[in-house]
Amino acid sequence: MTGDPATAVNKEQAVTEEVLASFDATPDPRLREVMHSLVRHLHAFARDVRLTEHEWESAIEFLTRAGHITDSRRQEFILLSDVLGLSMLTVAINEPAEPGATESTVFGPFFVDSAPEIPLGGDIARGAKGLPCYVSGQVRTTGGEPIEGARIEVWEADSDGFYDVQYTDDRSAGRGWLRSGANGEYRFWSVLPAPYPIPHDGPVGDLLTATARGPMRPAHLHYMVTAPDFRPLITHIFVAGDPYLDCDAVFGVKENLVVEAVHHADTPAPDGTHPQDGWTSITFDLVLATHDGR
Amino acid sequence: MTGDPATAVNKEQAVTEEVLASFDATPDPRLREVMHSLVRHLHAFARDVRLTEHEWESAIEFLTRAGHITDSRRQEFILLSDVLGLSMLTVAINEPAEPGATESTVFGPFFVDSAPEIPLGGDIARGAKGLPCYVSGQVRTTGGEPIEGARIEVWEADSDGFYDVQYTDDRSAGRGWLRSGANGEYRFWSVLPAPYPIPHDGPVGDLLTATARGPMRPAHLHYMVTAPDFRPLITHIFVAGDPYLDCDAVFGVKENLVVEAVHHADTPAPDGTHPQDGWTSITFDLVLATHDGR
Repeated sequence: MTGDPATAVNKEQAVTEEVLASFDATPDPRLREVMHSLVRHLHAFARDVRLTEHEWESAIEFLTRAGHITDSRRQEFILLSDVLGLSMLTVAINEPAEPGATESTVFGPFFVDSAPEIPLGGDIARGAKGLPCYVSGQVRTTGGEPIEGARIEVWEADSDGFYDVQYTDDRSAGRGWLRSGANGEYRFWSVLPAPYPIPHDGPVGDLLTATARGPMRPAHLHYMVTAPDFRPLITHIFVAGDPYLDCDAVFGVKENLVVEAVHHADTPAPDGTHPQDGWTSITFDLVLATHDGR
Repeated sequence: MTGDPATAVNKEQAVTEEVLASFDATPDPRLREVMHSLVRHLHAFARDVRLTEHEWESAIEFLTRAGHITDSRRQEFILLSDVLGLSMLTVAINEPAEPGATESTVFGPFFVDSAPEIPLGGDIARGAKGLPCYVSGQVRTTGGEPIEGARIEVWEADSDGFYDVQYTDDRSAGRGWLRSGANGEYRFWSVLPAPYPIPHDGPVGDLLTATARGPMRPAHLHYMVTAPDFRPLITHIFVAGDPYLDCDAVFGVKENLVVEAVHHADTPAPDGTHPQDGWTSITFDLVLATHDGR
């Protein structure tokens, strides 16, 4: 003797309606809207997949592990958002591309707000391991006008695939900021970015393994560029030819952020230096959208 | 100069498609189905509300706090699932009501698997504060046949609204299990359940406050009833007249789980005892569904 399926569906719907109503008195209208939508979509997910009690328990356990592995150096919930594409979707929603402007991508968990200022043409590697890489370009408007004095902050992993903050010795390396010059020009030394895995010894790594996905990110250099009257630009550049461009674990790659890294052996660099083991160069212009363009 | 809205929508959709495709090679078909549905609904939520970057950051911070307050005695993610109605929906999906059988409700986070066996008619309060409550009834089939030897496990908060495990002195009280007798009958002493707040000094409590919801649960006694060849029954009974029956923080109330608690002053209890400050009684039959009924 089974229950009436129509009655069962109605009882499920009744739960959802009761939960939605419980949020009706939320004073802040935006929070009310967000909670109503969250409940609708979360419940629709559970109903659509016929979520089992065992799966529900697994989800609770997954989130608990994510919480317990998260500390001041490790943010498993950001990793989870990243591998589910929620981070990149949030970028797409909030930073729609303006024609001609440089596109945005994910911020990532490795930014540090105390990186040092370096002079135009200085070295942001500051001891980070890797092949020297000379990065240069122009900061300009979508109309082609140079932007002087833009603040360009950059950060990257070393050739072993680790950011400074992933080491336990409190080093600061592979990060810094500088200002664009009178004609919008910028240039700095760094190291050639290397592909690396996102931290995958936790629950997010287990999820990637169970779903036959890899943890690798293609080589990239992070930028955050700000200038008065322009939209802040948070992006990366990726290195052409990288084997992981088509399977970035966090879905950050956009075609026009992929740049050539030119290898040099016998020629000196534009600033007259000549690194012993050779060097590379990347050229990338930063085109900022105006606030009005949003 | 704004971007083309149609292009922006397409770019958002492209993120979702790329993420869905990344799960296509998941070896386990059920996990693949669950991840595809999760991504679709999670992304639809973010797009529907136009999730801002600040809101995304707030969500990461909320989950981080939930993880850090969770330990062996506190499970904030279960509380979160409870107040979003996901726990009760999961019950509705997996335990559809069989006509005539006792209905299910949420399991809750306070079950302990080492509670002691007590004899038929014994006391599960074992020192828990509160007005004595004599609970009795019959375990039977939906066809009315008595079920002998069913294992009936019960647990409850004391009159201060706390379960034993919420105290730090390792006490065991307000919980135990017994077997139904030859005619399916069961009876035990407990204390009259009291309404209590779910733990609300963490992020889930902050969410309830921000949404003008209360943390209270109406008074209830938990049951888990098992017998060979029958579906396990996980439920509560609630006390009629409780002021929180219409606003249970975790949405666990079902009309036919609400029972009368009769107060007695001058009459002795059915077992001949006569508690000094009076006592109460509750009668509740436990009607088990067969496995075939699923």
